[in-house]
Amino acid sequence: MTSRDSGHLFRQVYEYILTGIERGEWKAHHKLPSIRQLADQFQIHRLTVFRAYQMLKQDGKAYVKEKAGYYVSPGDPKEEAPEYAGSRPIAASVLLKNDLSEIQRLPVVYQFSQALIDPNLLPNLYLSEYVKKVFDTYPKLMGSYSPVEGDEELRQVLCRYLAKHSRIQLTEGEMLITTGATQAIDLLSRTFIRPLDVILVERPTYSAALDNFRQQGCRILPVEIHPDGYDLERVEMLMKQFKPRFFYMNPTFHNPTGYTVPSSQRKRLVELAEEYRCLLIEDDAFHEMYFEEPPPQPLFSYDSEGWVVYLRSFSKYMAPGLRICAVAGRRSVIEPLVTAKSLTDNGTPLVNQKIFLHYFESARMQQHLDKLRIALQIRKDIMEEELAAAGWNWVSPKGGLNLWVHLPKTIDMKALLAESIRQSVSFVPGAICDPLMEMQSSLRLCYSFVNEGQLREGIKRLVNIAHLSP
Amino acid sequence: MTSRDSGHLFRQVYEYILTGIERGEWKAHHKLPSIRQLADQFQIHRLTVFRAYQMLKQDGKAYVKEKAGYYVSPGDPKEEAPEYAGSRPIAASVLLKNDLSEIQRLPVVYQFSQALIDPNLLPNLYLSEYVKKVFDTYPKLMGSYSPVEGDEELRQVLCRYLAKHSRIQLTEGEMLITTGATQAIDLLSRTFIRPLDVILVERPTYSAALDNFRQQGCRILPVEIHPDGYDLERVEMLMKQFKPRFFYMNPTFHNPTGYTVPSSQRKRLVELAEEYRCLLIEDDAFHEMYFEEPPPQPLFSYDSEGWVVYLRSFSKYMAPGLRICAVAGRRSVIEPLVTAKSLTDNGTPLVNQKIFLHYFESARMQQHLDKLRIALQIRKDIMEEELAAAGWNWVSPKGGLNLWVHLPKTIDMKALLAESIRQSVSFVPGAICDPLMEMQSSLRLCYSFVNEGQLREGIKRLVNIAHLSP
Repeated sequence: MTSRDSGHLFRQVYEYILTGIERGEWKAHHKLPSIRQLADQFQIHRLTVFRAYQMLKQDGKAYVKEKAGYYVSPGDPKEEAPEYAGSRPIAASVLLKNDLSEIQRLPVVYQFSQALIDPNLLPNLYLSEYVKKVFDTYPKLMGSYSPVEGDEELRQVLCRYLAKHSRIQLTEGEMLITTGATQAIDLLSRTFIRPLDVILVERPTYSAALDNFRQQGCRILPVEIHPDGYDLERVEMLMKQFKPRFFYMNPTFHNPTGYTVPSSQRKRLVELAEEYRCLLIEDDAFHEMYFEEPPPQPLFSYDSEGWVVYLRSFSKYMAPGLRICAVAGRRSVIEPLVTAKSLTDNGTPLVNQKIFLHYFESARMQQHLDKLRIALQIRKDIMEEELAAAGWNWVSPKGGLNLWVHLPKTIDMKALLAESIRQSVSFVPGAICDPLMEMQSSLRLCYSFVNEGQLREGIKRLVNIAHLSP
Repeated sequence: MTSRDSGHLFRQVYEYILTGIERGEWKAHHKLPSIRQLADQFQIHRLTVFRAYQMLKQDGKAYVKEKAGYYVSPGDPKEEAPEYAGSRPIAASVLLKNDLSEIQRLPVVYQFSQALIDPNLLPNLYLSEYVKKVFDTYPKLMGSYSPVEGDEELRQVLCRYLAKHSRIQLTEGEMLITTGATQAIDLLSRTFIRPLDVILVERPTYSAALDNFRQQGCRILPVEIHPDGYDLERVEMLMKQFKPRFFYMNPTFHNPTGYTVPSSQRKRLVELAEEYRCLLIEDDAFHEMYFEEPPPQPLFSYDSEGWVVYLRSFSKYMAPGLRICAVAGRRSVIEPLVTAKSLTDNGTPLVNQKIFLHYFESARMQQHLDKLRIALQIRKDIMEEELAAAGWNWVSPKGGLNLWVHLPKTIDMKALLAESIRQSVSFVPGAICDPLMEMQSSLRLCYSFVNEGQLREGIKRLVNIAHLSP
């Protein structure tokens, strides 16, 4: 493992012990587990545990008794936020956070941080009229629960659609409907990760997924994604050496970079997954959002042994408010996910599934998609035009909703974000998309949410702020 | 800890090691952690670990080397289900299951297992007409995401409602909207439990909650619930001795028994929670489903220090298909839950919240509720009439949707369930509601889902099957 990887790992051991202390599992002046014990327990190197203890010592959380080991320092009650002082239920994980969600909750005019489609580009009126018909068809829709795995009619329709458009053959028993892709990622994360398991993720990657995986306390190893895909030798080395539970990937119009992993690599990745028994989680959120030509076939279409699970968010480009995502995979993967789903919310609301289904099947849907692709390309072109003048760098994507922009290294990203938000411009700073929390000079700009006029104006503002900053 | 409690605990240690073996963390013929190590790690008695190892030995999963400890037995590949043989992604927890959901997925005519309200008793037509108006009011509803914590307008309305009807004062910042109570329980479970934490639950309790808590790998201590409430001395002893993270309770028309914890105990329970820093999770799903008079005030209304979190499922009696539940609590509890929610699904669909909101505010809603209470009481009376003839025992509830029935001990519950399902009658066997997995002579019958005629016919069948069985 590189020093970077073990750096990430030692932080997790640090958090593990700190949480235990905060929650009173180890009390003031009591002995903490020995370095050997923790190293055995987590099957990690003793030096990694040693580093965590050194850090705890530095932070005043633990102290050393000569030849006896580490002990819990008495807590400083002043450190607690005053409103909770000394008496609040303590959340189980200090890692529990969601950076992206926090940025996106800020109200701004020039919203470039949310990878969402402008509601004005969606068939809202048509859909609203449509809804009435759906309730006529299913008069007891409001009173009915969905099966845990999702509405059967909807799963059949989506299976047919995938067979026709993406060369994916599956039956409805191999599909689970979730409330958006976020929930699908969460279910996979909970079902397949235990603390200190190893997983692979792209670098950079979707930050909300990253926050979710971190919360499970796993060891996250990065796989760099480039305009022409991954370094497959490195992927193989990582799979061989670390036996990761899964590789979470977004190989088509990748979020945040927009890169697409080429066909030639896809088949090989499935072979590697089979050989090293590493589940590939293929998040294909932007599959339909291409500009010139459709993307290569999903990795899932090459899978015969059940080592790929395929996430396809369908409502994003049609009615995102409905939150409909399909998870496709072999029974061995889908079965435990259905159980996890039953424990999580016992099924996505049927109302949402039926409204979605009937629109999805209509002729209108393909027309809408065609128009939407053109509208998105126009917005992308405008954003690129404005950025080109600033001398910033990016690789122009062939689909998706984002540009991944590299700034001159002299620009302080934290200051840029703070000033931009003050001036009502938001973006996603690269560091939160990076499993190593670096990438200080990159940022993600979403071109699909605000209209053309605001796009120009907002990017002009952003460029100005960046170039005025010291 | 009583022998029963430690029995439950030893099974968890057993599962912990077995999962590790299944996942290859400890390989064939490798040494397992010592009894002392595990006892230290989990802060449990060595005898408990010893029992777990004995069980693993019996089951052929581990073997002993004299004076050297326990080792992993070589696996038997024939034990794997053939379709997965040797190559499937392994779910993180072998405890992952949901008994209730499995029974409820069986298609039967006489559905007494789902605590749901008959869709025919719900204002479906009115609601369907209504939906159109909602979409006129919010034309971009389909294209919009909800804030993570829930729609602000909805939270304001629900806060006003709770202030008026349940003497609960709170602001919308102290409320989170979830996709049903199941999700609320899941978020609380994930936010506040770590493996081997202690929690308290009622005995019996809601089995889906139990399955969720088990999945977190916590130690579950039971608190018996009686027609007149809990044994508060025992509650205090448990809180004092085991420092549970929380007490999950359903004190009003309790599921499955229908019992209601009296006012006199409620205030005291909140004091105990404060004193021993044990969060009370008050699940108040059936609050509005009373027959003669409204139930006592929620425990939450006595809370001033933030040790009660209140779950109120609102859509159950109106439009269960919408899945709207409110979680109310002080900021110290709600804040980490909002973060967990953002990682889970990033917000309950806005469509569902807005449809619910507008109906909830209408005058029609209270009329519907009044009529529904009468309809439910009639069904309860019919079920009781049919059961009275059979000589079975139960305490007649003053609200809720279920009867908790005690059968003669001679009846074999497993055989009864199997034969009942064969004859299209379903119920919930007591054992799955029991944290100790006993209660073999009790069952839960829901009277709210099937109509009067089917109720009579179904109960006659059930009684017949029971009395014909050997």
